Order: sequence, then structure tokens, then C-alpha cells
Amino acid sequence: MTPDGAMKERAARVIAECRQIATFTEEPGRITRRFLTPPVRDVYAHLSQRMRALGMAVHVDAAGNLRGLWQAGGKEPRKRLMLGSHIDTVPDAGAFDGVLGVVLGLQWVALAQEINLPLAIEVIAFSEEEGVRFGVPFIGSRAVAGRFDPSLLALKDADGVTVESALRAFGLDPAKIPDAVLDPATVAFVEIHIEQGPLLEAEDLSLAAVTGIVGQTRLDLKFSGQANHAGTTPMRLRHDALAGAAEWISSVESLALTTDSLVATVGKALVEPNAGNVIPGSAQVSLDLRHANDSVRIAAAEALLQQASAISARRGLTAAWNYKMNQPAVPMDERLTAFLAESMESAGLPAKRMASGAGHDAMVMAAAVPTAMLFLRSPGGISHHPDESVREPDVEAALLAGRGFLERLAAESR
Amino acid sequence: MTPDGAMKERAARVIAECRQIATFTEEPGRITRRFLTPPVRDVYAHLSQRMRALGMAVHVDAAGNLRGLWQAGGKEPRKRLMLGSHIDTVPDAGAFDGVLGVVLGLQWVALAQEINLPLAIEVIAFSEEEGVRFGVPFIGSRAVAGRFDPSLLALKDADGVTVESALRAFGLDPAKIPDAVLDPATVAFVEIHIEQGPLLEAEDLSLAAVTGIVGQTRLDLKFSGQANHAGTTPMRLRHDALAGAAEWISSVESLALTTDSLVATVGKALVEPNAGNVIPGSAQVSLDLRHANDSVRIAAAEALLQQASAISARRGLTAAWNYKMNQPAVPMDERLTAFLAESMESAGLPAKRMASGAGHDAMVMAAAVPTAMLFLRSPGGISHHPDESVREPDVEAALLAGRGFLERLAAESR
Repeated sequence: MTPDGAMKERAARVIAECRQIATFTEEPGRITRRFLTPPVRDVYAHLSQRMRALGMAVHVDAAGNLRGLWQAGGKEPRKRLMLGSHIDTVPDAGAFDGVLGVVLGLQWVALAQEINLPLAIEVIAFSEEEGVRFGVPFIGSRAVAGRFDPSLLALKDADGVTVESALRAFGLDPAKIPDAVLDPATVAFVEIHIEQGPLLEAEDLSLAAVTGIVGQTRLDLKFSGQANHAGTTPMRLRHDALAGAAEWISSVESLALTTDSLVATVGKALVEPNAGNVIPGSAQVSLDLRHANDSVRIAAAEALLQQASAISARRGLTAAWNYKMNQPAVPMDERLTAFLAESMESAGLPAKRMASGAGHDAMVMAAAVPTAMLFLRSPGGISHHPDESVREPDVEAALLAGRGFLERLAAESR
Repeated sequence: MTPDGAMKERAARVIAECRQIATFTEEPGRITRRFLTPPVRDVYAHLSQRMRALGMAVHVDAAGNLRGLWQAGGKEPRKRLMLGSHIDTVPDAGAFDGVLGVVLGLQWVALAQEINLPLAIEVIAFSEEEGVRFGVPFIGSRAVAGRFDPSLLALKDADGVTVESALRAFGLDPAKIPDAVLDPATVAFVEIHIEQGPLLEAEDLSLAAVTGIVGQTRLDLKFSGQANHAGTTPMRLRHDALAGAAEWISSVESLALTTDSLVATVGKALVEPNAGNVIPGSAQVSLDLRHANDSVRIAAAEALLQQASAISARRGLTAAWNYKMNQPAVPMDERLTAFLAESMESAGLPAKRMASGAGHDAMVMAAAVPTAMLFLRSPGGISHHPDESVREPDVEAALLAGRGFLERLAAESR
């Protein structure tokens, strides 16, 4: 078994390997790696070599996911653990979003081999999670979870290339996507990922066991009033759509500040006619609401829409909205999450639990298999940015917690 | 002398004539008549004929203004009254903005002839006021007020045509613009104009004597914070630029509502990155502040910028601004304004006085000659729109007030 002192060196290798994979990019000098673009082949060549060195059988499934299977003791055990995350990136990305979960997954395989884990392990590099190329995320994990809608094949990228053509150009057969579904022997999926937020850093913690992925409401809301001359229209005769929207934006913020764990964001504002000397005739704003408890989220959306109506009525405006998304929260598996939290404690770390405010492949996989997620602190809370990073002691902690997790899984299976 | 009963018929003719002039347009079906475009020739042909019928001498000055001179009794009197407004329009305009002041000016000439006014009258149709074609307003009145900066000749329109080329193409000699300056015998300029706001309608009044053109501050203000993930960033760790801007927009409105006659408008908002699921990193907003009292306006600007700084400091944002305009108020001539107000009272109307919230040629002319303005009610407050209109009884009131004004001027000059 790996002595704890060797974990530090292993952590350094994980970080170096992520940075090496970051050199496989569509844009020299920036990390950009969209679904099925040429650098994906380079990533797969690298990871395949790593997998084979660990004694794993490697293939790329029909959805473009790279999959390596380690069978304990050379014979197929009854149960299988799946580990992984995605290897596509946003444009001008960092080196760790997604990739870290695959590279750490391979390290966990090495740890599993050392403790003779009585389960097979499949490590998966999901081909598509970010939704950058075709505007729809989770293409890779949808296929593995058996939730790939064939109509997705007709989606086109900015160059007019369909998902179907992109798969074929990569040497894949879209008709075989149903075969990409996870093996029925799979009893657990674990995704290791950077937090992509500032919470662990604010609490000076290395790791968190993720309790669930928050539910999310997105809507667009348009305040309409009367565009008019900024000089000749007295204040009391105005129907200023932006003034109404501003009052509402403040009430959105205020509700979120006073509702535990609710996050609410107005990220977008479009004013018409958007001229300095014209009173705004309309102001369209977005709302993004997230909470781990669906009823809290739904009540918050209703309260905010009531406030929009009340503000509009008082100001002689109208408010109209349409929901763009109403996605329930996805809880992680309690038993697996407890294994992660206990393993953190065994490694001398607080058993921090937190909800994920962002979507992840784990959210899709949870519909098909008991699923857990382990978060690593994001220094500065920075992600989707070249400055994205991960601390070596936190990676070391993830290795120690991983060994504990695998030991608990082994104990349960023996 | 015209019996009062005939004034109603005359008012109807004024409205019909404005609607006839509206048919001279660059765009069939819409009223669009920019500086020195072909329909301006048609307007000038029409107005020249009307001026000559009134015994006026007509010419187009080097800045493209049409000017008709009536000399009382056939000999040049010592003093001259100038009347007029602009005949260019915004795109998709109404029929009365500007044009009404020229057409009513000619009616005032007829009234002056009936009372044997002992002053010459020059009626001017300013060639450019709206600033649409070259982005700079008041080209016509600047020349007449002796404030034409020759560097304006190099301004280009959307097709790359300079002011200089446009003047030459219209058959004019830019070198002669200094000759367009008003005659030293001119003792008064009066501009008749629609209010372009809702105030007179709200008070059910036909006319107002304008006390002055408000001073105006325009500035752009940028709140900068930290763009971040809308799901993973807890509310208390955010630096949301739009939330800060929204709070400030509300304080702008609040200050204007509690400061007599102040109007304050945030007409423009530009959010970056302007995505529904990203906390705004920056929000740039405009401020347009107007008041007839410069010290009130300047104090309001300072108070609002202090609030922007305070809001930013509290939220971990920065606020930076730059002034785009800081234009003092232009008071109208007190004696001429009193003549207008007294004439309104003599005609049985309240002697309503109000400031103009919009700029007008009168603002430019006031620097060169005692100037007054008469406002007519704008139904619905509508202007710069095809629905712009004027009520016949209000035009009739403007004719009655005009006769009273000319009588007062005559009494003073005899």
C-alpha cells in the first residue's frame, strides 16, 4: 500500500498530468477543446496509454466517450464502480475543470489495485459536458445514462456540422449509441471535480462531499413602459421600464440574501431603445434561481414574479415572463456520500458537505445509478478561466479520501 | 384686422399646411427629412411661394437656411423681429416638430401686416436642428448666431459625404457662411414649437411661455465587479455589478422625484458578459440630468456620483464615470417672455410659464439676440413619432397670443 508520504508526490503528478493534457487544444496559447475536435484524439491517445499501463481494456463508445475497464484479479467481478468526468472544455478554459476527475480517477484505480478492491472499475472520460459546440450539454453522459434523445443528432454547430456528422467524422457509428449505456453491473458512479466556486476557500477546506445538484429555474422577464423624451417628461408622468427593472433586481438580491442557501442572479439586461436621452420603453432581464430544495426555489420564483407584477402595477408598466428552465434538484446517493464524508474524516479532514450550484455529469448519471461527487477547493473560486487551479495538498487529500472510500466499498462488498 | 372668428379657420390652414409639408420626405410613407436632402428643396419651393405671397424677399443663406424678409411699409425700419424654427426632421417623424414654428411664423407676418407693425420681420426656416445626418445639431442656427465652427464642415454623414460637400451639392458656398449671421438690426427672436412633452396636456393648457432651456449633464458610469458563476457563488461572496447599478438607478429616480423640477434618466444599460448564468462583471449606465437652475443640476450630479461611490464601496465594486456633456441652462429674455405671457392672458388663457426640457434653436440664438419661445400643447406628449399632433384650438390660441405679442412689440417701438 502506498505510504502516505508518497501521496504528495502522486498529487504533484496529477497536477502535472492535467497541465500536460491542457496542451491538447484547438487554439494555441489558450485551452479550448470542444466535443470531438482534433485535440480530443490527442487526449484519448494520452489517456489510453495511461489506462493500458494500469492493465485496463480501452475503447471509445459510440457517443465518443473514452472508457477504460479494470477487472480485479483478471476475472469479471459481479460489481462495477464507475469513475470519471468530462474532457471537453469551454473556450479559453482552465486545465482542471473535468480533466481532474479523469486523471484522479486513474489514480484511484491504482489505489484500488493496491487494496485489491473486489469490484471492477470503469474510468470514463465523457466526450461532451459543456454544451459549447452544439449548445446542448451532457451529450456524453446522456448516452451512458441511457437518456440520449436521437433528435440531438440533428443539432448543428456554428459551421453547420451536425452531431451525427461529427460522430461519423470521428470514426463512430451513431446507430450504436444505445450500446454506450452503462453496464448493468455498475453499482456506483463517482465524479471528482473542482468546486468552481469560492465556498471551500472561504472556509479553508480542501474537500467537500456533494449532497446534491441544486434545482434551477431560469426565466426571462420583460418590463414594458413608455419610451419618452428624457428632457420633456416630468418624473411623475413617466413609465420607465428600466427604473422598474432596477427596483425588481434589488428585490431579487434582497430575497436571496435573506433565504438560506438560495442564489439568485440577474445576469442579463437588454434595454430599448437604450439611448441616454430616451426614457427606457422596455427592459428585459433574466433570472437564474438555484436551491437544493425544490420547494424553496419554486416559492422564491413565485414571490419574485408577484413582486414584478406589483412593481409594474404601481409604475404603470407591464411585466411578462417566460420560463426557460425549471429543473428539479438532483440529490446524490446518501450511502456513497456518507462513505466520502467518513473517508474525509478518516483522513483528518472535516466531513464538509455542500450542494453543487453548477450542473455536472453526476446529475445525469444519478438518474441511472447511485452517484456521488467529491469537490476539491477552487483557489480564488476561479473556473472557466486560464487562472483556474488546484492546490497540491487538496489533491493529496482527494487521494487519501479516495483510498478511504475504496476501502469502505471493499468492506461492504466482501 | 382679422376678426377672432377667422382665427379658427386660419388655425385649420396652419395644420393642413404642416401636413402638406410632411409629404416632402426622403422615405415614402414616413416623414424623414434630413439636412439638405432633396425634399428640403420641395419644402423651400413651397415656403418661398408663401413668403412671396406675403410680400417677402426670399433667399437661402450659405448654411442652407431659407430666409424671407418682410419690410414694413416697403422701407427698411430700424428694427427687425426674427421668427422661425427648423424644417429638418428625425427619421419617421411627425408633421409639426419645427415646421409648425415656420408656418405659424408666416401667419404672424400676416397678423403683423394687419396691425402695421413698425418692425421688419424675418422668417427663418433653419436647415438643420436635429443632428441626424451629421451627428451634430443646430448647424443652421449656429451660422445665424455667428457660432458656426468651420471644423463642422469636415463632419461626414453615413455615406461619407461631408457638410462642405453637401452644402456645395445644394448650390451653396461654404465660404459665405459668416454672411449668414443675423442682421444687427435684429432685436428679438421668437421660436414657436410644440412642447414635445406631456406637461401642458396634464394641466389642460394650450400654451406656455418658455422661461428657459434647462441645463443638461450627461455622463456614462461604469460599475465594475467580478463576473462569476451564478450557481456556485454564494450571495455574500458576490461583487455583482448589475445589482450595484440597479441600486444606483433607484437612487437616481428617488433624488429626481424629491427635487422640484429635476428630471433624471438612466436610458442606457450595458451589462458584461450579459449571460443569464453569469454574475455581471460590469454594468455601464448613462445618466441624463436636466434642470433650469444650474446649481441644482450640478449638486444633483455630485450627490449621485457620491452615492455611486458609496454603493460601490459597500459592495466591493468600483465606479468610474466620465462626463459627456455639461451644458448650462439658457434663460429666455425676460421682457419678451413677459410679452408672451401677457398676450396669453389678454387672449383669455392662463399665463403659464415653463422651462423647456429639450434643446431648441432658441437656445443657440439666445447667445446672439434677446430670444423667447412659445410652446403649444403636444397631445399625448407625443413627438418624434408619426402620431405627433397639434390641436386646432391650441393653434388658434397661438395666433391670438401672437397678435397680442406683436401689438406689445409695436406699442414699445412706436
